[in-house]
Amino acid sequence: MALIVHKYGGTSMGSTERIRNVAKRVAKWARAGHQMVVVPSAMSGETNRLLGLARELQPEGHSAQLARELDMIASTGEQVSVGLLAIALQAEGLEAVSYAGWQVPIRTDSAYTKARIESIDDIRVRADLAAGKVVVITGFQGIDGEGHITTLGRGGSDTSAVAVAAAMKAAECLIYTDVDGVYTTDPRVVPEARRLQAISFEEMLEMASLGSKVLQIRSVEFAGKYRVPLRVLSSFTPWDIPLAEEAVSGTLITFEEDENMEQAIVSGIAFNRDEAKISLLGVADKPGIAYQILGPVADANIDVDMIIQNVAHDGRTDFSFTVHRNDYARTLELLKSAVQPLTHAAQITGDAKICKVSIVGIGMRSHVGVASRMFRTLSEEGINIQMISTSEIKTSVVIDEKYMELAVRALHKAFGLDAPPAATAA
Amino acid sequence: MALIVHKYGGTSMGSTERIRNVAKRVAKWARAGHQMVVVPSAMSGETNRLLGLARELQPEGHSAQLARELDMIASTGEQVSVGLLAIALQAEGLEAVSYAGWQVPIRTDSAYTKARIESIDDIRVRADLAAGKVVVITGFQGIDGEGHITTLGRGGSDTSAVAVAAAMKAAECLIYTDVDGVYTTDPRVVPEARRLQAISFEEMLEMASLGSKVLQIRSVEFAGKYRVPLRVLSSFTPWDIPLAEEAVSGTLITFEEDENMEQAIVSGIAFNRDEAKISLLGVADKPGIAYQILGPVADANIDVDMIIQNVAHDGRTDFSFTVHRNDYARTLELLKSAVQPLTHAAQITGDAKICKVSIVGIGMRSHVGVASRMFRTLSEEGINIQMISTSEIKTSVVIDEKYMELAVRALHKAFGLDAPPAATAA
Repeated sequence: MALIVHKYGGTSMGSTERIRNVAKRVAKWARAGHQMVVVPSAMSGETNRLLGLARELQPEGHSAQLARELDMIASTGEQVSVGLLAIALQAEGLEAVSYAGWQVPIRTDSAYTKARIESIDDIRVRADLAAGKVVVITGFQGIDGEGHITTLGRGGSDTSAVAVAAAMKAAECLIYTDVDGVYTTDPRVVPEARRLQAISFEEMLEMASLGSKVLQIRSVEFAGKYRVPLRVLSSFTPWDIPLAEEAVSGTLITFEEDENMEQAIVSGIAFNRDEAKISLLGVADKPGIAYQILGPVADANIDVDMIIQNVAHDGRTDFSFTVHRNDYARTLELLKSAVQPLTHAAQITGDAKICKVSIVGIGMRSHVGVASRMFRTLSEEGINIQMISTSEIKTSVVIDEKYMELAVRALHKAFGLDAPPAATAA
Repeated sequence: MALIVHKYGGTSMGSTERIRNVAKRVAKWARAGHQMVVVPSAMSGETNRLLGLARELQPEGHSAQLARELDMIASTGEQVSVGLLAIALQAEGLEAVSYAGWQVPIRTDSAYTKARIESIDDIRVRADLAAGKVVVITGFQGIDGEGHITTLGRGGSDTSAVAVAAAMKAAECLIYTDVDGVYTTDPRVVPEARRLQAISFEEMLEMASLGSKVLQIRSVEFAGKYRVPLRVLSSFTPWDIPLAEEAVSGTLITFEEDENMEQAIVSGIAFNRDEAKISLLGVADKPGIAYQILGPVADANIDVDMIIQNVAHDGRTDFSFTVHRNDYARTLELLKSAVQPLTHAAQITGDAKICKVSIVGIGMRSHVGVASRMFRTLSEEGINIQMISTSEIKTSVVIDEKYMELAVRALHKAFGLDAPPAATAA
């Protein structure tokens, strides 16, 4: 019938019993006539165990030769998984064959521990599928131009699955995970949060980048670039539920906006507490000032998220940005030693107790007043907004972290996300 | 100075602490100016752990597709080892790079789980050595003509190391293990057993095939075929003993008989209790009878070791052979059902409580009366000999297993192996 890619996370592959369940689920799809490619992660805990051994031995500092060996070691976790899953599929009476990334091959650049996929050769896999085999391919890894093993970074198996689906023009890529889809916000914070039946690729991209951990952001970028229909669904439903029911469960990430899309203005509320805010007050308002401030930060390999510079007065302006909370102390130190002498900032201040709350929705493109409704809602709750940043389909604010839950709940209600889509007041 | 191959077993690689010691030892050799290639096994217990997971999932029976996946899984143990050792070497300040078998490549046939090495391409390794790097290569595995991972069977890392040494024309291949060399016999049975400073390749081959577990027999065959000087030595001596002392420790396996060889007639006593004896009494003495008996045994994949057929009388003869004790019941069953009706054997008998004791020595070629001295010694101890088999450099007897220790001790003394070589009465 169709070519389908399944991806299973480490929890789904966490024991031989669970691997057996994965095999039974895949067998159900294969017996329904689908051509099946499966991309499993390493068994949960395995990558950490392997890198823990390496950490006990490794020298101080980082080098390309060290990173190469870390990839050599870490990639074995997925190789074990594909072999075990292929065997479990054989026990289900299917023909099955596994491939490591280098055998496909999945070609990447040479950026060990965070490589990017460049191309995938699908000849071998297609031949196996044509011969009626289920093909099991390692996630997380590939091979570079010199024949060295590379890995794609944490969560890279999502990207592998999407890349394989793209290369093979699969009808759909199903990401089986330990949640049953994408929610309007985190149900642990807002019990009324609802699972979305569908979300646009752009919205998912914003949700992922804003801290929703359901999918690795690069896998979403890949899906968007190659227009791979992606579905996030639970690997903990019984394997023997009817295929027709399973095939429409979870959340579909689509780029066909008019199909299956809920017509809400705002699709979800994302938030995270991983950031810290830093401000340089009273810096000279002159060309090159942003580079003077952020150049040394980038050189120190510190990722900057939001950047705010307001209009100047009296030739002076205030410059603020956020970094990951782990980089907060280092960034402050760097600014005081390397940047302050150059910029003559009157003061450098920071705050690690902040959070970022974002509303995301394709509907914002065509509806005015969405941001102002957000600001009004927060104001009615007495929450002060410290920073604002917007894109075409999202508005993010930085607030005191102690108001995070309150803000998320209030916004979830204000944008009608508590109610099922039919009743949404748009 | 010279190109040296080191091989370390699973016990030597059993923990990060031990891997660190291996790295320090290799670093000592590298700093002395040697070009170093290192072949480590999987960390002890790892291969069993991996195959245990596979066993929980695998279907009944055996198939090539199952065997292929077992190799996919088992080969990861060595891949982790090479990565960890390369990292430990880097921590010692050396440049180090690891390769899986497929990366070298080490080419094998497609006999999954028991593949044989066909060729080794050394271009990549030579380039690294020339650039001053230590090269760490996985043992136990290779790649077949279709690009599938293969493994060489248990103990295959010895063979990998010797094959790499042969391909690269290494000056010596040092097998570091948990014993400090090859002994005249097992010291647990004969406390007077002495370590041999050198043993000929042919003697080592007999010792290995007769049950001495120091080296995998195929690695010895390989060493003989390509004339690789092989040394078995202990990985538990402190890593920082002087290199000059370490380089002559253990036992050298050589094919240059006149060099460093102890001129004893008998070099060692081997024994094993793994076999069982089966006899067919009163079979017709006619052409084809041996094939009629052993054909079905071979077809059932049962390995036969000793085979004895004595002269016939009255057109009837007795036919005896030994099999592994694990195959004893199955073989008896097979003979009774499939062979007895054809051969009209008067009786089929067997005995699993036997042992095989062998004397091995190149000196036997040129000295008459060695076998008879063996028989006289056993006779003086009142030990009955049930079967005898000889080759150019060994004589084996099958006796009741309860006399094993007595026989080995008596023979060890009778052939002067208790005394150091200078005092040997030849």
